[in-house]
Amino acid sequence: MAKIYSRTDLAIISIVVIMITISSCRDAEEQKSNVDAIHQKLIFAKGEKITNNNFTGNAYLQMLINADSLNQTSVGNVTFEPGARTKWHLHPAGQILLVTDGVGYYQEKGKLKKILRKGDSVKCPPNTEHWHGASPDTFFVQLAITGREKGETVWLNAVSDEEYLK
Amino acid sequence: MAKIYSRTDLAIISIVVIMITISSCRDAEEQKSNVDAIHQKLIFAKGEKITNNNFTGNAYLQMLINADSLNQTSVGNVTFEPGARTKWHLHPAGQILLVTDGVGYYQEKGKLKKILRKGDSVKCPPNTEHWHGASPDTFFVQLAITGREKGETVWLNAVSDEEYLK
Repeated sequence: MAKIYSRTDLAIISIVVIMITISSCRDAEEQKSNVDAIHQKLIFAKGEKITNNNFTGNAYLQMLINADSLNQTSVGNVTFEPGARTKWHLHPAGQILLVTDGVGYYQEKGKLKKILRKGDSVKCPPNTEHWHGASPDTFFVQLAITGREKGETVWLNAVSDEEYLK
Repeated sequence: MAKIYSRTDLAIISIVVIMITISSCRDAEEQKSNVDAIHQKLIFAKGEKITNNNFTGNAYLQMLINADSLNQTSVGNVTFEPGARTKWHLHPAGQILLVTDGVGYYQEKGKLKKILRKGDSVKCPPNTEHWHGASPDTFFVQLAITGREKGETVWLNAVSDEEYLK
Protein backbone atom coordinates (compact mmCIF):
# COMPACT_ATOMS: atom_id res chain seq x y z
CA MET A 1 0.00 0.00 0.00
CA ALA A 2 1.28 3.50 -0.87
CA LYS A 3 2.41 5.57 2.11
CA ILE A 4 0.08 8.46 2.88
CA TYR A 5 0.87 11.90 4.30
CA SER A 6 -1.20 14.36 6.34
CA ARG A 7 -1.41 18.09 5.56
CA THR A 8 1.02 18.73 8.42
CA ASP A 9 3.57 16.33 6.91
CA LEU A 10 3.14 18.07 3.58
CA ALA A 11 3.63 21.54 5.10
CA ILE A 12 6.83 20.48 6.88
CA ILE A 13 8.25 18.83 3.75
CA SER A 14 7.38 21.90 1.61
CA ILE A 15 9.13 24.25 4.03
CA VAL A 16 12.25 22.08 4.05
CA VAL A 17 12.26 21.97 0.23
CA ILE A 18 11.84 25.78 0.01
CA MET A 19 14.66 26.40 2.53
CA ILE A 20 17.06 24.12 0.64
CA THR A 21 16.20 25.70 -2.72
CA ILE A 22 16.51 29.30 -1.43
CA SER A 23 19.82 28.41 0.24
CA SER A 24 21.27 27.08 -3.03
CA CYS A 25 19.98 30.19 -4.87
CA ARG A 26 21.74 32.38 -2.27
CA ASP A 27 25.00 30.51 -2.75
CA ALA A 28 24.73 31.11 -6.50
CA GLU A 29 24.03 34.81 -5.93
CA GLU A 30 26.95 35.19 -3.54
CA GLN A 31 29.27 33.53 -6.00
CA LYS A 32 28.00 35.87 -8.74
CA SER A 33 28.51 38.87 -6.48
CA ASN A 34 32.14 37.88 -5.86
CA VAL A 35 32.72 37.51 -9.60
CA ASP A 36 31.16 40.95 -10.15
CA ALA A 37 33.44 42.39 -7.49
CA ILE A 38 36.54 40.93 -9.16
CA HIS A 39 35.31 41.94 -12.60
CA GLN A 40 34.68 45.43 -11.27
CA LYS A 41 38.20 45.76 -9.87
CA LEU A 42 39.69 44.53 -13.11
CA ILE A 43 38.50 47.18 -15.56
CA PHE A 44 42.21 47.85 -15.92
CA ALA A 45 44.83 45.29 -14.95
CA LYS A 46 46.22 45.43 -11.40
CA GLY A 47 49.78 45.08 -12.64
CA GLU A 48 52.85 44.35 -10.57
CA LYS A 49 53.69 45.09 -6.95
CA ILE A 50 55.60 48.37 -6.66
CA THR A 51 59.07 47.61 -5.29
CA ASN A 52 60.61 51.08 -5.26
CA ASN A 53 60.98 53.13 -2.11
CA ASN A 54 58.33 55.75 -2.93
CA PHE A 55 55.41 54.01 -1.23
CA THR A 56 54.50 52.89 2.30
CA GLY A 57 52.71 49.51 2.37
CA ASN A 58 51.72 47.42 -0.63
CA ALA A 59 50.67 49.04 -3.89
CA TYR A 60 50.43 47.76 -7.47
CA LEU A 61 51.03 49.55 -10.77
CA GLN A 62 49.91 48.79 -14.29
CA MET A 63 51.11 51.38 -16.80
CA LEU A 64 48.38 51.88 -19.43
CA ILE A 65 50.03 54.64 -21.46
CA ASN A 66 53.69 55.61 -21.42
CA ALA A 67 54.70 59.15 -22.29
CA ASP A 68 56.72 59.62 -25.49
CA SER A 69 58.21 62.55 -27.36
CA LEU A 70 54.83 63.34 -28.99
CA ASN A 71 52.34 62.53 -26.18
CA GLN A 72 54.01 63.59 -22.97
CA THR A 73 51.27 62.30 -20.69
CA SER A 74 51.37 58.92 -18.94
CA VAL A 75 48.49 56.95 -17.43
CA GLY A 76 48.98 54.33 -14.73
CA ASN A 77 46.45 52.23 -12.82
CA VAL A 78 47.46 52.15 -9.15
CA THR A 79 45.91 49.78 -6.59
CA PHE A 80 46.68 50.46 -2.91
CA GLU A 81 46.07 47.86 -0.22
CA PRO A 82 44.42 49.21 2.97
CA GLY A 83 46.82 51.61 4.74
CA ALA A 84 49.18 51.87 1.75
CA ARG A 85 50.12 55.35 0.49
CA THR A 86 52.65 57.27 -1.55
CA LYS A 87 55.40 59.34 0.05
CA TRP A 88 54.97 63.10 -0.15
CA HIS A 89 55.83 64.09 -3.73
CA LEU A 90 55.24 66.66 -6.46
CA HIS A 91 54.84 66.68 -10.24
CA PRO A 92 56.40 69.53 -12.27
CA ALA A 93 53.44 69.45 -14.71
CA GLY A 94 50.75 68.37 -12.22
CA GLN A 95 48.63 65.24 -12.05
CA ILE A 96 45.02 64.10 -12.37
CA LEU A 97 43.62 61.25 -10.27
CA LEU A 98 40.43 59.37 -11.24
CA VAL A 99 39.07 56.99 -8.61
CA THR A 100 37.63 53.75 -10.04
CA ASP A 101 37.11 51.78 -6.82
CA GLY A 102 37.53 51.71 -3.06
CA VAL A 103 38.06 54.51 -0.54
CA GLY A 104 41.23 56.59 -0.29
CA TYR A 105 42.81 59.84 0.79
CA TYR A 106 44.42 62.81 -0.99
CA GLN A 107 46.20 65.61 0.81
CA GLU A 108 48.12 68.68 -0.31
CA LYS A 109 50.70 70.10 2.12
CA GLY A 110 49.07 72.57 4.52
CA LYS A 111 45.50 71.53 3.57
CA LEU A 112 43.03 69.07 5.07
CA LYS A 113 43.04 65.45 3.91
CA LYS A 114 40.24 64.69 1.43
CA ILE A 115 38.37 61.38 1.32
CA LEU A 116 38.08 59.97 -2.21
CA ARG A 117 35.54 57.43 -3.45
CA LYS A 118 34.73 55.68 -6.73
CA GLY A 119 33.89 58.29 -9.37
CA ASP A 120 35.80 61.15 -7.71
CA SER A 121 38.48 63.04 -9.60
CA VAL A 122 41.28 65.30 -8.35
CA LYS A 123 43.40 67.87 -10.12
CA CYS A 124 46.77 68.28 -8.41
CA PRO A 125 48.49 71.51 -9.57
CA PRO A 126 52.12 71.53 -10.76
CA ASN A 127 54.85 71.57 -8.09
CA THR A 128 52.37 71.01 -5.27
CA GLU A 129 53.55 68.73 -2.47
CA HIS A 130 50.92 66.02 -1.84
CA TRP A 131 50.28 62.33 -1.11
CA HIS A 132 47.51 59.84 -1.86
CA GLY A 133 46.64 56.32 -0.82
CA ALA A 134 44.07 53.92 0.60
CA SER A 135 42.05 54.42 3.77
CA PRO A 136 43.11 52.17 6.69
CA ASP A 137 40.41 49.53 6.13
CA THR A 138 39.67 49.65 2.39
CA PHE A 139 41.69 49.19 -0.77
CA PHE A 140 41.79 52.07 -3.27
CA VAL A 141 42.08 51.99 -7.07
CA GLN A 142 42.92 55.11 -9.07
CA LEU A 143 44.10 56.13 -12.50
CA ALA A 144 47.02 58.55 -12.32
CA ILE A 145 47.38 60.87 -15.34
CA THR A 146 50.71 62.63 -15.21
CA GLY A 147 52.20 65.29 -17.46
CA ARG A 148 55.87 64.55 -18.09
CA GLU A 149 56.73 67.59 -20.25
CA LYS A 150 58.25 69.58 -17.40
CA GLY A 151 60.26 66.84 -15.74
CA GLU A 152 59.82 63.77 -13.57
CA THR A 153 58.09 63.34 -10.20
CA VAL A 154 60.08 64.61 -7.20
CA TRP A 155 59.84 62.21 -4.24
CA LEU A 156 60.08 63.53 -0.67
CA ASN A 157 59.57 62.18 2.89
CA ALA A 158 57.33 59.28 3.87
CA VAL A 159 53.85 60.13 5.19
CA SER A 160 54.09 59.32 8.90
CA ASP A 161 51.33 57.35 10.65
CA GLU A 162 50.45 60.56 12.52
CA GLU A 163 50.10 62.52 9.25
CA TYR A 164 48.22 59.63 7.63
CA LEU A 165 45.65 59.30 10.40
CA LYS A 166 45.19 63.03 11.09
CA MET B 1 -10.90 14.02 8.92
CA ALA B 2 -7.54 15.38 7.68
CA LYS B 3 -7.03 15.11 3.91
CA ILE B 4 -4.37 12.60 2.97
CA TYR B 5 -1.90 12.66 0.04
CA SER B 6 -0.13 9.90 -1.84
CA ARG B 7 3.61 9.96 -2.66
CA THR B 8 2.72 11.00 -6.22
CA ASP B 9 0.72 14.00 -4.96
CA LEU B 10 3.64 14.91 -2.74
CA ALA B 11 6.16 14.66 -5.60
CA ILE B 12 4.02 16.88 -7.87
CA ILE B 13 3.49 19.48 -5.13
CA SER B 14 7.24 19.49 -4.30
CA ILE B 15 8.20 20.05 -7.93
CA VAL B 16 5.74 22.95 -8.24
CA VAL B 17 7.10 24.51 -5.03
CA ILE B 18 10.72 24.14 -6.26
CA MET B 19 9.88 25.66 -9.67
CA ILE B 20 8.15 28.68 -8.06
CA THR B 21 11.03 29.22 -5.60
CA ILE B 22 13.74 28.93 -8.29
CA SER B 23 11.78 31.29 -10.53
CA SER B 24 11.60 33.96 -7.80
CA CYS B 25 15.33 33.49 -7.08
CA ARG B 26 16.05 34.02 -10.79
CA ASP B 27 14.01 37.24 -10.83
CA ALA B 28 16.02 38.49 -7.86
CA GLU B 29 19.29 37.60 -9.62
CA GLU B 30 18.25 39.31 -12.84
CA GLN B 31 17.28 42.43 -10.93
CA LYS B 32 20.64 42.35 -9.15
CA SER B 33 22.42 41.91 -12.46
CA ASN B 34 20.69 45.00 -13.86
CA VAL B 35 21.67 47.00 -10.79
CA ASP B 36 25.27 45.81 -11.21
CA ALA B 37 25.17 46.86 -14.85
CA ILE B 38 23.93 50.34 -13.94
CA HIS B 39 26.42 50.60 -11.07
CA GLN B 40 29.16 49.54 -13.48
CA LYS B 41 28.23 52.19 -16.04
CA LEU B 42 28.13 54.85 -13.38
CA ILE B 43 31.71 54.82 -12.12
CA PHE B 44 31.73 58.30 -13.60
CA ALA B 45 28.54 60.25 -14.28
CA LYS B 46 27.01 59.91 -17.76
CA GLY B 47 26.50 63.67 -18.02
CA GLU B 48 24.44 65.52 -20.59
CA LYS B 49 23.52 64.68 -24.16
CA ILE B 50 25.97 66.24 -26.59
CA THR B 51 24.08 68.75 -28.73
CA ASN B 52 26.89 70.12 -30.89
CA ASN B 53 27.40 69.07 -34.49
CA ASN B 54 30.58 67.03 -33.92
CA PHE B 55 28.91 63.66 -33.37
CA THR B 56 26.68 61.31 -35.37
CA GLY B 57 23.96 59.68 -33.24
CA ASN B 58 23.47 60.11 -29.49
CA ALA B 59 26.43 60.60 -27.17
CA TYR B 60 26.73 61.97 -23.63
CA LEU B 61 29.53 63.95 -21.99
CA GLN B 62 30.46 64.49 -18.38
CA MET B 63 33.55 66.66 -17.97
CA LEU B 64 35.56 65.37 -15.00
CA ILE B 65 38.54 67.74 -15.23
CA ASN B 66 38.69 71.02 -17.14
CA ALA B 67 42.02 72.31 -18.40
CA ASP B 68 43.31 75.52 -16.82
CA SER B 69 46.41 77.67 -17.21
CA LEU B 70 48.41 75.35 -14.89
CA ASN B 71 47.04 71.88 -15.81
CA GLN B 72 46.41 71.95 -19.52
CA THR B 73 44.87 68.47 -19.71
CA SER B 74 41.12 67.82 -19.68
CA VAL B 75 39.30 64.58 -18.87
CA GLY B 76 35.79 63.83 -20.10
CA ASN B 77 33.63 60.73 -19.70
CA VAL B 78 31.90 60.03 -23.03
CA THR B 79 29.06 57.52 -23.43
CA PHE B 80 28.07 56.59 -27.01
CA GLU B 81 24.77 54.87 -27.79
CA PRO B 82 25.06 51.97 -30.29
CA GLY B 83 26.04 53.34 -33.73
CA ALA B 84 26.98 56.77 -32.37
CA ARG B 85 30.43 58.17 -33.24
CA THR B 86 32.49 61.33 -33.45
CA LYS B 87 33.19 63.09 -36.74
CA TRP B 88 36.72 62.79 -38.08
CA HIS B 89 38.87 65.15 -35.96
CA LEU B 90 42.36 65.81 -34.66
CA HIS B 91 43.96 67.09 -31.45
CA PRO B 92 47.04 69.36 -31.70
CA ALA B 93 48.49 67.80 -28.52
CA GLY B 94 47.06 64.29 -28.99
CA GLN B 95 44.58 62.32 -26.92
CA ILE B 96 44.39 59.21 -24.72
CA LEU B 97 41.26 57.04 -24.60
CA LEU B 98 40.57 54.60 -21.74
CA VAL B 99 37.65 52.24 -22.27
CA THR B 100 35.58 51.58 -19.13
CA ASP B 101 32.64 49.69 -20.66
CA GLY B 102 30.99 48.42 -23.82
CA VAL B 103 32.42 47.80 -27.28
CA GLY B 104 33.57 50.52 -29.67
CA TYR B 105 35.76 51.46 -32.58
CA TYR B 106 38.81 53.67 -33.09
CA GLN B 107 40.28 54.48 -36.49
CA GLU B 108 43.11 56.70 -37.69
CA LYS B 109 42.93 57.93 -41.29
CA GLY B 110 44.49 55.40 -43.68
CA LYS B 111 44.63 52.63 -41.06
CA LEU B 112 42.31 49.75 -40.19
CA LYS B 113 39.52 50.28 -37.65
CA LYS B 114 40.35 48.85 -34.21
CA ILE B 115 37.78 47.23 -31.93
CA LEU B 116 37.98 48.53 -28.36
CA ARG B 117 36.67 46.80 -25.23
CA LYS B 118 36.55 47.51 -21.49
CA GLY B 119 40.11 47.90 -20.19
CA ASP B 120 41.63 48.89 -23.53
CA SER B 121 43.58 52.13 -23.91
CA VAL B 122 44.58 54.08 -27.02
CA LYS B 123 47.19 56.76 -27.58
CA CYS B 124 46.22 59.04 -30.45
CA PRO B 125 49.24 61.08 -31.63
CA PRO B 126 49.05 64.86 -32.11
CA ASN B 127 47.51 66.15 -35.35
CA THR B 128 46.35 62.68 -36.40
CA GLU B 129 42.97 62.51 -38.12
CA HIS B 130 40.78 59.89 -36.39
CA TRP B 131 37.33 59.00 -35.10
CA HIS B 132 35.92 56.85 -32.30
CA GLY B 133 32.51 55.62 -31.26
CA ALA B 134 30.28 52.69 -30.33
CA SER B 135 29.85 49.48 -32.30
CA PRO B 136 26.48 49.15 -34.07
CA ASP B 137 24.84 46.99 -31.39
CA THR B 138 26.58 47.95 -28.14
CA PHE B 139 27.03 51.16 -26.17
CA PHE B 140 30.59 52.35 -25.48
CA VAL B 141 31.97 54.28 -22.50
CA GLN B 142 35.42 55.89 -22.61
CA LEU B 143 37.45 58.47 -20.75
CA ALA B 144 39.00 61.01 -23.13
CA ILE B 145 42.21 62.64 -21.84
CA THR B 146 43.09 65.58 -24.05
CA GLY B 147 46.09 67.90 -24.00
CA ARG B 148 44.98 71.48 -24.61
CA GLU B 149 48.38 73.18 -24.55
CA LYS B 150 48.76 73.31 -28.33
CA GLY B 151 45.24 74.38 -29.27
CA GLU B 152 41.71 73.06 -29.47
CA THR B 153 40.33 70.02 -31.32
CA VAL B 154 39.89 70.49 -35.09
CA TRP B 155 36.62 68.97 -36.32
CA LEU B 156 36.34 67.62 -39.87
CA ASN B 157 33.81 65.58 -41.95
CA ALA B 158 31.25 63.15 -40.56
CA VAL B 159 32.15 59.45 -40.62
CA SER B 160 29.89 58.03 -43.35
CA ASP B 161 27.97 54.80 -42.81
CA GLU B 162 30.28 53.19 -45.38
CA GLU B 163 33.40 54.27 -43.47
CA TYR B 164 31.80 53.31 -40.14
CA LEU B 165 30.89 49.78 -41.23
CA LYS B 166 34.06 49.05 -43.25
